[in-house]
Amino acid sequence: MSTLTVGVDLGGTNTRAGLVTGGGEIVGRARYPTRLDLGSDAVVGGIADCVRGAISDGGVDPSKVGGVGVGSPGPLNLETGVIISPENLPCMRGVPLKALLESELGRTVAVDNDANLAAYGEQWMGVGRGVGNFLCVTLGTGIGGGWVADGKLMRGFNGNAAEIGHISLNLNGPRCPCGNHGCFELYASATAMVRRTRERLSQEQPETMLEPDGLTTEAISRAAEAGDAFAAEMFEQTGFLMGAGLVSLVNVMNVEMIALAGGMARAGERLFEPARRTFLERGTVGVKEFVRIVPAALGDDAGILGAARLARDAAAER
Amino acid sequence: MSTLTVGVDLGGTNTRAGLVTGGGEIVGRARYPTRLDLGSDAVVGGIADCVRGAISDGGVDPSKVGGVGVGSPGPLNLETGVIISPENLPCMRGVPLKALLESELGRTVAVDNDANLAAYGEQWMGVGRGVGNFLCVTLGTGIGGGWVADGKLMRGFNGNAAEIGHISLNLNGPRCPCGNHGCFELYASATAMVRRTRERLSQEQPETMLEPDGLTTEAISRAAEAGDAFAAEMFEQTGFLMGAGLVSLVNVMNVEMIALAGGMARAGERLFEPARRTFLERGTVGVKEFVRIVPAALGDDAGILGAARLARDAAAER
Repeated sequence: MSTLTVGVDLGGTNTRAGLVTGGGEIVGRARYPTRLDLGSDAVVGGIADCVRGAISDGGVDPSKVGGVGVGSPGPLNLETGVIISPENLPCMRGVPLKALLESELGRTVAVDNDANLAAYGEQWMGVGRGVGNFLCVTLGTGIGGGWVADGKLMRGFNGNAAEIGHISLNLNGPRCPCGNHGCFELYASATAMVRRTRERLSQEQPETMLEPDGLTTEAISRAAEAGDAFAAEMFEQTGFLMGAGLVSLVNVMNVEMIALAGGMARAGERLFEPARRTFLERGTVGVKEFVRIVPAALGDDAGILGAARLARDAAAER
Repeated sequence: MSTLTVGVDLGGTNTRAGLVTGGGEIVGRARYPTRLDLGSDAVVGGIADCVRGAISDGGVDPSKVGGVGVGSPGPLNLETGVIISPENLPCMRGVPLKALLESELGRTVAVDNDANLAAYGEQWMGVGRGVGNFLCVTLGTGIGGGWVADGKLMRGFNGNAAEIGHISLNLNGPRCPCGNHGCFELYASATAMVRRTRERLSQEQPETMLEPDGLTTEAISRAAEAGDAFAAEMFEQTGFLMGAGLVSLVNVMNVEMIALAGGMARAGERLFEPARRTFLERGTVGVKEFVRIVPAALGDDAGILGAARLARDAAAER
């Protein structure tokens, strides 16, 4: 088995690849825009170019490089490597990504959900290193989850484990496009926080420096830093909702660490403090004292490293 | 490794043991009352007697029997085999069950949570046979859960995985003794169903044959069978709550089968039909179509078989 593999993070905007050593070091990189406008052939070709670019950037003999792992927005069929119906990659619906890339690159390709692989990367080389039972929560448009139990990436029977954005916080809450009601991501994602802030701005006209146009969690965070009490309250609320959701997840998963990733997690203690406080108020004695809720460490590299680790697993299984 | 092990189910009322073959057949049995009134020494002595009773009942040479597995109400420390603070076994708080039994029996003893072992038994020899990703839900005073993922019993970092009774269905719901709010078991356990029925009987005085005194889920089920519309509505409601909770659990666990165990599950389609309907209304496309929600098959033997299987695992690990 080669000690070098390539990890790819396929995003709606950019495709990024890293050439990764067996020790988890990224020794070559490439990044291309994801050309959704040109259709699926161009996207697949772009991934292949990106893989070759990372190998070339690393300056190693391509024959010394093993398999390729790809993290893609889900849902996916993990066995066949077919993308089913990703919201952010509409042109990729039904595309047999694994088979196309294997034929294009002449290498073994493994695919998995991007949130799963971000967790797998963080647990390999990031904040979850050495933590056998680990959950990584990615906060963005929705809430993505990736989960390692006893050191293994959890997939469930058809690759849809850890869809943590779709546990319900309120069975009578609003209907989510997924079919469930009151989903976690309708309350505690970055999008949800911005929407709730906008609603209160228009309904209550609070005293605040925030403007509804172009509102982001970064803007709310900056306002809170500058002493804006309304902005601070929005983080307090979101932290409470985050903590409440994590209690249910820990009661099922019994993980000892939860890493929060994504732009909103950069708000730091303003989000983490109320989340941890709620977690300690509502969690189970004998468990909650041991659970650490921390920021993820690797940023965008988590997905690349997790994908490279997946490629190593696939090689070891052959 | 011996092909025979003993599985014990330690309950608040009875202690039951089975001598179990490598193929999962129970070839000897014993059952004693659990003498909580006489203190922990008597309870531990009773378990040992029960183990010896099952071996004797099987008529095999005791030297041909390997280890012992014990399912106990939790919480437990799985490594040390110490019972922490079981509500139903107050005299057993802090008792080092594993060490005491090993010394008493001269055999290796492994302990785990009773709900975990019921699931492990059902997945070995019952309705979950051959199902790699399986959840068993035990309905009683609370809601217990046991969960097998990729064929392995899930424990998490300190043995408290699958505490499914304590996911929240409503983050603003009533506070549960566990610390969380709006817990699943406050809505969909047998106890919750009886309490809700009683409340409605006293508040609404509905037309029904049900009496609040001595009310049980069995009585509600019999009334529903006899055409009592109020009783039928209580099952419809409970089935809805059950289905709503299972959606969140499947979105995290991605199990392909959920078995419902415990007396309330014997109400059959009256409970299962609304639970399945709600599950299909709220579950995720690409997952929900494949998930079977079924009655558990083994009754009280599930725990014995799971405990015997645990003893086999413990022997294999040595």
